[in-house]
Amino acid sequence: MTLTGGLDLAAVFVFALTGALTASRAQLDIVGFIFIACLTAVGGGTLRDLVLGRTPVFWIAAPEFIYLAAFAALVVFFTAHLLESRYRAILWLDACALAVAVPAGVGVAAHLGQPAPVLVMMGVATGCFGGLMRDVVCNEVPLVLKQGELYVTAAFAGASAAAIAIWQGLTPDIALLICAAVTLALRAGSMAFGWRLPVYKSRPPRS
Amino acid sequence: MTLTGGLDLAAVFVFALTGALTASRAQLDIVGFIFIACLTAVGGGTLRDLVLGRTPVFWIAAPEFIYLAAFAALVVFFTAHLLESRYRAILWLDACALAVAVPAGVGVAAHLGQPAPVLVMMGVATGCFGGLMRDVVCNEVPLVLKQGELYVTAAFAGASAAAIAIWQGLTPDIALLICAAVTLALRAGSMAFGWRLPVYKSRPPRS
Amino acid sequence: MTLTGGLDLAAVFVFALTGALTASRAQLDIVGFIFIACLTAVGGGTLRDLVLGRTPVFWIAAPEFIYLAAFAALVVFFTAHLLESRYRAILWLDACALAVAVPAGVGVAAHLGQPAPVLVMMGVATGCFGGLMRDVVCNEVPLVLKQGELYVTAAFAGASAAAIAIWQGLTPDIALLICAAVTLALRAGSMAFGWRLPVYKSRPPRS
Repeated sequence: MTLTGGLDLAAVFVFALTGALTASRAQLDIVGFIFIACLTAVGGGTLRDLVLGRTPVFWIAAPEFIYLAAFAALVVFFTAHLLESRYRAILWLDACALAVAVPAGVGVAAHLGQPAPVLVMMGVATGCFGGLMRDVVCNEVPLVLKQGELYVTAAFAGASAAAIAIWQGLTPDIALLICAAVTLALRAGSMAFGWRLPVYKSRPPRS
Repeated sequence: MTLTGGLDLAAVFVFALTGALTASRAQLDIVGFIFIACLTAVGGGTLRDLVLGRTPVFWIAAPEFIYLAAFAALVVFFTAHLLESRYRAILWLDACALAVAVPAGVGVAAHLGQPAPVLVMMGVATGCFGGLMRDVVCNEVPLVLKQGELYVTAAFAGASAAAIAIWQGLTPDIALLICAAVTLALRAGSMAFGWRLPVYKSRPPRS
Repeated sequence: MTLTGGLDLAAVFVFALTGALTASRAQLDIVGFIFIACLTAVGGGTLRDLVLGRTPVFWIAAPEFIYLAAFAALVVFFTAHLLESRYRAILWLDACALAVAVPAGVGVAAHLGQPAPVLVMMGVATGCFGGLMRDVVCNEVPLVLKQGELYVTAAFAGASAAAIAIWQGLTPDIALLICAAVTLALRAGSMAFGWRLPVYKSRPPRS
């Protein structure tokens, strides 16, 4: 199995866990858990494949991805009550999923021989859109929009690091590992230590 | 006309009715009715065609689908005031639309020679995504998420029944009729008699 | 550069401005501004390209579109505090973006030799979906749904005017200019003078 294939599997599994936990907050039944888990797990990669013209998309060609997401949903359905805070679990698992999905997106684009800006865009899109669909459908405030946290920024920095590494002649596998490390470090650092970029603040009240 | 073609037409028409009724709850004008009706009517089938790589999608190849959805929107615009409860009408029409859209999705995938898991996924996606887009855009609580009702479950059971029937050697047409019957029975039974699966309930308050 | 290419550029830039202004209302950081600006700027055109089967989509083939959207986001990040009302700026910029995006959608479809109904649908989809995604993701009431304003109607009238003009034998460039003028006139007239179509009103309270 290639590194990109392994990253895709890991991203699907961990995003599916976050989707199922979000389904538990909405008190859905077991099939609802599987539905939201699959949506979250394959949403970003589906967008990536569609805009790049790689059809049928990855989970049609290999339904194992769907089985894996469904398995993750079952695990959550029977164990989520053991968690102290499902919301904190969602946050941290989502950070891990982001850190594998961004390099998965970059890896697919690099494999197709796309130029550096497309690598960055596919990394950000693959990383951010699964969670965005999960939050929009389940009516939660999208993590992407949480004020004063590095989320899109972490994805962007990780994908950019990979593009620079590939441009500098490092092997793709090393570039993808750098990408995962940068993304996870920034996202986790933002949650644990409050790292952030300045946000836009207008002087007068919101208008 | 093939059975799949007929199911596609029926799904477009009935989903368009639900979309227009939702537009009436948002007090849109006539073009707004047509817009939401079209979005609901072709949303699920568009996703199905995109992920399977069938482009241009079905309503580009045959604009009659759009005319049909627009006609449904006109019918609702001029008659919705006769309904006692538009919300109940949406619920029941949506159940009928689900029961024709799921087999339409399965039928297209079967026609392309896809394996059983893809048949099930395309049935669920075609059935559920049109209504999901309607509800997200119009800011209604998605029917997919309504606690303790069989919705995705009905679609999943119907699509699975069709996949099993095809695997057992039944003709595709009979498999699709079984699919429609199972989906409608479960969804209608859930609304009328309260059939449901156990939902996830955590002991402590939502966290 | 062709007229359609110029319209695509203009639509990307002006929609990106509206996206960044919406990001400022959500108090995001600079990368968040760029993310929402890009989503708004290329959302409609991406949908158009996907359903027509033009992949890779336009901004993969030409990343300049993304640079332009990012530049617009930077401009807004550093100047939005000078605006008296960001909401009014969003409304008027969105009207301008609509008036260039609708002909851009029609122009691409006409270039592919699509029939008149497809021209109209691609005009409406390209014009309306970028702003719709922006509003759904940022949890604003979609402009598409604002009661008693011409929005989809303006897009529909403009696209229809272009289709009629092409059918009457006018050159595509003139047809696209007519399209832009009709769309802008109706949308701006609706905002400035209250032009509207009758909206659906039920006698009894909303049910």
